[in-house]
Amino acid sequence: MNRPKPVHPVSTFIKLPFMPQLHHFRLSPYCRKIRILAGELDETLTLTDAQPWARDPAFLALNLAATTPVLELDGETASGAGICPSSAIAEYLIETAENGQRVLGNTAEERAECRRLTAWFDERFGAEVSDLMVAEKVLKRLMRGGSPDVVSIRMARHNIRIHLNYVTFLTERRNWLAGRDFTLADMAAAAHFSVMDYLDEVPWNKHPDARDWYQRVKSRPSFRSLLADRMGGFQPPAHYDDLDF
Amino acid sequence: MNRPKPVHPVSTFIKLPFMPQLHHFRLSPYCRKIRILAGELDETLTLTDAQPWARDPAFLALNLAATTPVLELDGETASGAGICPSSAIAEYLIETAENGQRVLGNTAEERAECRRLTAWFDERFGAEVSDLMVAEKVLKRLMRGGSPDVVSIRMARHNIRIHLNYVTFLTERRNWLAGRDFTLADMAAAAHFSVMDYLDEVPWNKHPDARDWYQRVKSRPSFRSLLADRMGGFQPPAHYDDLDF
Repeated sequence: MNRPKPVHPVSTFIKLPFMPQLHHFRLSPYCRKIRILAGELDETLTLTDAQPWARDPAFLALNLAATTPVLELDGETASGAGICPSSAIAEYLIETAENGQRVLGNTAEERAECRRLTAWFDERFGAEVSDLMVAEKVLKRLMRGGSPDVVSIRMARHNIRIHLNYVTFLTERRNWLAGRDFTLADMAAAAHFSVMDYLDEVPWNKHPDARDWYQRVKSRPSFRSLLADRMGGFQPPAHYDDLDF
Repeated sequence: MNRPKPVHPVSTFIKLPFMPQLHHFRLSPYCRKIRILAGELDETLTLTDAQPWARDPAFLALNLAATTPVLELDGETASGAGICPSSAIAEYLIETAENGQRVLGNTAEERAECRRLTAWFDERFGAEVSDLMVAEKVLKRLMRGGSPDVVSIRMARHNIRIHLNYVTFLTERRNWLAGRDFTLADMAAAAHFSVMDYLDEVPWNKHPDARDWYQRVKSRPSFRSLLADRMGGFQPPAHYDDLDF
C-alpha cells in the first residue's frame, strides 16, 4: 500500500479495461442480483461456478469468508483479494459504469430508499426465507448433509407470504419497489424470488400484484440468463421461465 | 411517487438544510459507526435514544424492521420512513457531505476494499462477537430476559481473538485497515471493538498491534463522544476512556 495510486474523481466514468470474473453459485440470490445488475449496466462478467463449501484454497484466497459472490478483477485491487460481499460488488459496478447511479435513484433520498429496500431483501428476506430454503433444499443435497429440516422449510413458507404482502404494499403505491424507476431494490428482490420460484416455493396465485411486478422484471433482457440457467439435479417448475405465467 | 422530484447530479455537494435525527442505541456498534462517521464528515446529528425492543409504534413507522440506527430526515424522503440500515445511512451521509467519498477511498478499487472490510465487521464480527455479547450481557438485562447464556458468551470470547488477529494482519501491512487512509472500515471496526471494550471483553494485552490501532482511533475527535457515553446500569472498565490504556 505504499505505492501511490491514481486518483479518480468519483463521478468519472472509468470503463473497466478487462472483463471481471464473477465467482458465483447459480441458486444464490446475492449472485443473481449482481448478474442482473451487470446486465442493466451493460457490463459483461465472466461467470465461474464456485462451490464455497468445498473450501478450495484458491477460492479462500479470494474471499476469506468463503461466500459467493466474489468479483475478481484482472487488475490489482487494494488487497489482492476479490471484491465481496454483493453490496460492495454492486457499488463497485455502479461506480465504474457510465451513468451507473441511475440504478440507485436520482437523488440522495431516492438512493437511500433504494439501498434500504435492497438491504431489506438481502438481509431480511435472506435470513427469513431464501437462506433457509436454499440451505435445506439445495445445499444439504449437494453436500450430502442429510434430509431437509421440516421446521425450517415451514418457517420459510410462512415468511415468504409476509414479503409478498410487502411487495404488494409497495407496488400499490409506486411504479417499481423503490419509486418511479427500476432500481437495484427490484433486482435484489427479484433475485430472491427467482431462486424461490426455481424451487417452486412462491404462492403466486395468492399474490397477483406481486406476480405482476415479477412478470415485469422477468421480461427485462437483464433477467434472461437467469431464466435459462439450470442447476444440475434441480429441475424448476414449468412456469419458471414462462414470461406469461 | 407520481410527483416529479428534483434531480441532483451525484457528485454535487448538497448541504443538508436541516439537522437529521439519529435514532440510536448507545451500545449498538452500528449506531456508533454512524456517530463516528458524522463526526468525520463534520455533520451534526441530533441523537435520540431508541429502545427497538419496546415496539413503539412511532419507531416502527420509521423502521418496520425495528432495528437501530434509523436516520430521520426533516425533509421528505422517498418513503416517508427513515433511512436504514446503517449501510444505507453511511452512503447517504457520504453522498451529501462535501468531499464525503474520501472516507471510502480515492479509487473505485480502494472503495471496494473499504466496503468489503466494513461489511466484514458489520456482518461477521457482528454475528460472531458483538451481537451475541450485546444480546447476552445488555439486552437480556434491559428486557429482563433471564440470565446470560454462557455458551454464547464463550463463543463470542473465542471469536473476538480471531478478529483481533485479523486486525493485526491488516495493520502489519497497511497504515489503516483498508489502506493508507482512515476510512469507514476503521470506523466500523472501532465501533464494534468500542462496545466490546465497554463490556470489558477485549483481551488487548494479548494483541498489542490491534491495541495500537485502536489507540490511534480513540484519539480522533470524532471518537470523543463515544468515550464520554455512559449507559445506565452498565459501568465500563477504567481503561475504556483512557487514551493511553
